[in-house]
Amino acid sequence: MNSKVRGLFRIALHLTLFFPAVFLLAQNAWAADQDLIGRVNRLCGPLPQAMPSEQNPLTPAKVKLGRMLFYEPRISIDGTVSCAKCHPLSLYAADGLKKARGNSYKESPRNSPTIFNAAAQISAHWVGNRTGVEDQARQSLIGPPSYGMPSYASVEKILREIKGYLPLFQEAFPGESEPVTVDNFAKAVGAFERTLVTPAPFDDFLQGKAGALTGEQKRGLVAMLDGGCLTCHFSPYLGGQLYRKFGIFAPYQTYTKSSPVDEGRFAVTKDEADKHVFKVPVLRNVAMTPPYFHDGSVEQLAEAVWIMAKVQLGKDLPPEQVSDIVAFLKALTGRIPAAALTVPVLPAKQ
Amino acid sequence: MNSKVRGLFRIALHLTLFFPAVFLLAQNAWAADQDLIGRVNRLCGPLPQAMPSEQNPLTPAKVKLGRMLFYEPRISIDGTVSCAKCHPLSLYAADGLKKARGNSYKESPRNSPTIFNAAAQISAHWVGNRTGVEDQARQSLIGPPSYGMPSYASVEKILREIKGYLPLFQEAFPGESEPVTVDNFAKAVGAFERTLVTPAPFDDFLQGKAGALTGEQKRGLVAMLDGGCLTCHFSPYLGGQLYRKFGIFAPYQTYTKSSPVDEGRFAVTKDEADKHVFKVPVLRNVAMTPPYFHDGSVEQLAEAVWIMAKVQLGKDLPPEQVSDIVAFLKALTGRIPAAALTVPVLPAKQ
Repeated sequence: MNSKVRGLFRIALHLTLFFPAVFLLAQNAWAADQDLIGRVNRLCGPLPQAMPSEQNPLTPAKVKLGRMLFYEPRISIDGTVSCAKCHPLSLYAADGLKKARGNSYKESPRNSPTIFNAAAQISAHWVGNRTGVEDQARQSLIGPPSYGMPSYASVEKILREIKGYLPLFQEAFPGESEPVTVDNFAKAVGAFERTLVTPAPFDDFLQGKAGALTGEQKRGLVAMLDGGCLTCHFSPYLGGQLYRKFGIFAPYQTYTKSSPVDEGRFAVTKDEADKHVFKVPVLRNVAMTPPYFHDGSVEQLAEAVWIMAKVQLGKDLPPEQVSDIVAFLKALTGRIPAAALTVPVLPAKQ
Repeated sequence: MNSKVRGLFRIALHLTLFFPAVFLLAQNAWAADQDLIGRVNRLCGPLPQAMPSEQNPLTPAKVKLGRMLFYEPRISIDGTVSCAKCHPLSLYAADGLKKARGNSYKESPRNSPTIFNAAAQISAHWVGNRTGVEDQARQSLIGPPSYGMPSYASVEKILREIKGYLPLFQEAFPGESEPVTVDNFAKAVGAFERTLVTPAPFDDFLQGKAGALTGEQKRGLVAMLDGGCLTCHFSPYLGGQLYRKFGIFAPYQTYTKSSPVDEGRFAVTKDEADKHVFKVPVLRNVAMTPPYFHDGSVEQLAEAVWIMAKVQLGKDLPPEQVSDIVAFLKALTGRIPAAALTVPVLPAKQ
């Protein structure tokens, strides 16, 4: 055999040995992806197009009015607070502060969560003292550290003085003799919030597109599934469905350096079992909404991930795994609906 | 003649007498409108499509970046202040407060004017202590009652930490080795503001459409021309071109009940002649941007109009004339450019 023939023979041998190996590897990877997609679909399921409510059906007129009222500061005691203050859409509907600032710069007791993908939780707020987004919108108006108004009647008085609102409330709540009410304010704002879902690369993955996540992101997802993170952070929102104690293996403040230490849901129920219990937060868009935890005590997502594993699961995650999980969490950063990103122009006072 | 013929004769007589009268009246009205359009065009002139600057040429990349930076609160000392805080577009780019509130709820010395149609004034701010919109954007960053940052370098540090800004600054300022600077922040925000012109029914009138103003509005415009209001409130912006003493015929505080009394431009020049001197404000969108005057001391537009005539012109305007003028001022409420009403989504910190 001359060298040319020997060369061809060697190539043929390589092909015979390696192609099946490559094929088997690819087949295994495909099967692993399908397995992962199936596994995570059972825990999460697809993100809906909106988060409707039987008590508050969505209509275009109600959503439009709600988007306006979301930006309305003239119904706060000092004219500085609107929903958009603590939930600016430009920062993924969170304010970037440790704790929100309301009227007269009063500090809110806890961190402002994003209102994206927020309406389908068991309750609103960290400790479940608001039944849902409508209740949250309503109670904010008289909340001392938020709008700080003395009464619902005082809010209604201002809304009625701004004449341009009447036709918009009439359209959103047809047939009502006095539609300009705080209840309808709450329904309109709630309806707007119910439209705020942000589909992300993770949803493409859930729908079967294995390539929507990078290898690192898939490793991060597997780590979260195997580690038990999704035991609490399940649902299409990856959270919002349970209350859980923060600090099972160690007090959370050991790592978050929180001061003061918040007793959580105990403040609502006065049940000892609810001490340091908080609602499991939604993880969607988490990379866009620092700082973290109920008190915004941690600025870096990687640190928050490490602390969660430490105090909730008793695990000391190695840096590579933290990094994989952070990569996965970035796949939860979603696309904000264009209609939500239009600034509404509010009616004049005179 | 029978009654039918008499009837026809009577109709013919009426037509002969009245048609020319109606025609003459219409012709007079037309001539009066044309005269008014000509007169006001000489004092105001057409609103441009943007307010360009030789020092800061407008490019789409610069305007886009400026719109983002306009909403950026993470470069303020407590994370609560952005341009949009005192100039929310939903309220016609003014905040509705007597005096603006900056970082840590600090009170600004004066009322926030709208930034719509604002870039072509002789200066920014009420007392001319900012050379223009770029200078205003820059100095706000270190202004103690606004962003309150300790230095420009500290702002640049944060802007550079938010990695997503680098490509946007590079695109807006091509060829610069370090484009992420406070100077370029100021240019970008200024460029965005230079696009914010709001054409109104008044502009249609200026362009010859006599029907764009109602009869009441035309009477109001004539009252302003005859009364001398446009001696100061001239230009396409109806103001912004002169400094003038507020309170020529009487101290302004006699009627505005202002306390404390602001010495105006004297604070900048230390010239006795500048005591109680302020920049003549732009009147565009005035009906949408209460409260009024440099200290927001007056809530109602009608009251502000009456006070202006009283203290600047020594006239006690009758209520009908105030009402006509207010009607005309409403014809200055303009259409906000759609591109300005999109909320920009800001890059993540990590």
